[in-house]
Amino acid sequence: MLNFDLYMPARIVFGRGTQKEIGKLIKPHAKKVLLHYGGGSIKKTGLYDQVIASLNESGIGYVELGGVVPNPRLKLVHEGIELCRRENVDLILAVGGGSAIDSAKAIAMGVYYDGDVWDIYETGKPIQKALPVAIILTIPAAGSESSGDTVISNEEKGRKYGYGSPLLRPLVSVMNPELFFTLPKEQIAAGVADMMSHIFERYFTNTTHVDLTDALSEATLRTIIANAPRLIDDPRDYDAWAEVGFAGTVAHNGLLGMGREQDWACHDMEHELSAAYDVTHGAGLAVLTPAWMKYVHKDNIDMFAQFALNVMGVSKGLRDKEELVREGIARLQGFYRRMGLPQTLGELGIDGSRLEEMARKGTREYYGKEHPLGGLKKLYWQDVLNIYRIAK
Amino acid sequence: MLNFDLYMPARIVFGRGTQKEIGKLIKPHAKKVLLHYGGGSIKKTGLYDQVIASLNESGIGYVELGGVVPNPRLKLVHEGIELCRRENVDLILAVGGGSAIDSAKAIAMGVYYDGDVWDIYETGKPIQKALPVAIILTIPAAGSESSGDTVISNEEKGRKYGYGSPLLRPLVSVMNPELFFTLPKEQIAAGVADMMSHIFERYFTNTTHVDLTDALSEATLRTIIANAPRLIDDPRDYDAWAEVGFAGTVAHNGLLGMGREQDWACHDMEHELSAAYDVTHGAGLAVLTPAWMKYVHKDNIDMFAQFALNVMGVSKGLRDKEELVREGIARLQGFYRRMGLPQTLGELGIDGSRLEEMARKGTREYYGKEHPLGGLKKLYWQDVLNIYRIAK
Repeated sequence: MLNFDLYMPARIVFGRGTQKEIGKLIKPHAKKVLLHYGGGSIKKTGLYDQVIASLNESGIGYVELGGVVPNPRLKLVHEGIELCRRENVDLILAVGGGSAIDSAKAIAMGVYYDGDVWDIYETGKPIQKALPVAIILTIPAAGSESSGDTVISNEEKGRKYGYGSPLLRPLVSVMNPELFFTLPKEQIAAGVADMMSHIFERYFTNTTHVDLTDALSEATLRTIIANAPRLIDDPRDYDAWAEVGFAGTVAHNGLLGMGREQDWACHDMEHELSAAYDVTHGAGLAVLTPAWMKYVHKDNIDMFAQFALNVMGVSKGLRDKEELVREGIARLQGFYRRMGLPQTLGELGIDGSRLEEMARKGTREYYGKEHPLGGLKKLYWQDVLNIYRIAK
Repeated sequence: MLNFDLYMPARIVFGRGTQKEIGKLIKPHAKKVLLHYGGGSIKKTGLYDQVIASLNESGIGYVELGGVVPNPRLKLVHEGIELCRRENVDLILAVGGGSAIDSAKAIAMGVYYDGDVWDIYETGKPIQKALPVAIILTIPAAGSESSGDTVISNEEKGRKYGYGSPLLRPLVSVMNPELFFTLPKEQIAAGVADMMSHIFERYFTNTTHVDLTDALSEATLRTIIANAPRLIDDPRDYDAWAEVGFAGTVAHNGLLGMGREQDWACHDMEHELSAAYDVTHGAGLAVLTPAWMKYVHKDNIDMFAQFALNVMGVSKGLRDKEELVREGIARLQGFYRRMGLPQTLGELGIDGSRLEEMARKGTREYYGKEHPLGGLKKLYWQDVLNIYRIAK
């Protein structure tokens, strides 16, 4: 186990009716909030009215900025920063999924940053200050409700970069599984693939003596795998949502990665797909993850055999580790298929024409200095290209 | 799953050498600290000197109060409160195990309380304010390094009460497994029994649809059971300590109990043993837990069968659930024995003479108004007496 620093301050208020408490929850921290959300869905479902009522009840003022899109854009972030400064906003309340939250975090740090907030994503330099962010989660997937991470797309530059800071950990996140009942099945499936990937990126490691986080990760993955298909059959299954929603938070609050060298190659490779083709992040991950496993598993066959046994429930009776691993990957693909997720880049509408460009951009080789991706196996741009080709 | 409110703000800084960072870690929050510890062991091991050096390096002043004993006493808490007020202390740094930490938390809230801090333990009323508490952990067991709980013994009244508040969650806890190398085997074993009990108290529940916390709890218990015996064989096994120490924190930071009705009867029953006979908390739990299981398991046989299968590794081949559960309990007792823990009240030096008194005190029937213990099964004083008798 490596030394680690675990910090999970985000308070999670979970369960039926909890969205109506938002005013009371943030009252000690906010006089005026920026209400930040996506399209009009929260107005159609009545959630918007509930939030406004709760803010009014607690005497909290607000300004609002809707229009966040999947793969949230820098342009709207700039707008939000200006609005917060002009209106003396002291807390950002994101109502939505990962995109609204990531956009809110970008605004939260941008308010105190002299210059273009995109610099922070590009340079990765530590921030000193950020507005507090509170959340009402409507899509469990990104885990952004507990993490200090944010991913933003710079539409002008065609780049999608992530950034993380303990200062971006949300103050409080409200999660009511009932708010997930109206999600389309594609979005449920993509969200599930995303949260599983957050665990995979931490789980697959060369670090040894990490029994506890191994076991916790496997437990969380098994819980997702057992419950998620019930949501495809019935998106109004509260109990299944409770398991999957809570698992999405545990997947990304930091706990499962403690003391381990982490990987994150699949996320980095997927960000290139999203930047170039605007695909749904989780769908991209479902295509790339098995391809990545096929390409890298020989570098740590024991880890992948453990995955096959403890997560995918492959029987020990199989002939050798290679066979065990192959069966584990096949079952993971079977699970994705059961969820209705795509299996190939082709199904995502991505042909072979830009694979090399994406591989070279993903590793930043394209921009002059190559940063290989991954932890379990370092991936250079040719490796990334090979994985994209496996996924074709 | 029940609605829940998860709040785990305690930052955990884990690994080799981390105790030397304490000054830097608390610097933003403290000008002058109360250094609170137990006997002289931290002076013998050199830890005391390392802490003082780190405080000096960061320019943090300190006063000190040693002398915390197992089952920490109210009298020392009173002394600490007075000292903190007189010296304008702004943070309490506990160096030790659960006792030093619990005593530090009592002082932390007592400083701001008008009247005897014992009132808070007796009435359970919410506190409004407390000094921040930081920790260097030397005994992994109580989980107090991440929890908002404190247990204090009132030696005059012969009572031992617990209290909890989110305001008592530590600011930062430093955990270096190397600091555990010198612990005597009895203390290692008792600590392990205590952390396992923290999970049991949350795990055994009548709440349904709690797959995730079931699985996380089972994963944590299995990790402890796999690694703890290695510490009895070699108390200097860093890797095994890393698993067990980290597990002790996860056991009690709140996560594993979310959305579940909890139990805590074994802890409450044990507190009476400690109050009356000053036994080691973990040793008392190792005696009482199997007796409790034998007495209550028929009330939720499925939960105990799940425990036998998923935690104690009992094979599904057994004839019926009752047999399965019996084998699970027997294996748990076998594990405690392997750890060198006592099996009976007699081994703890407790004869039958005060069992009824303890049962009546534990349920507070003795004091006029009975509060039955437990969640999975409500235990009145006669039930508690029956369990004590099973444990004889």
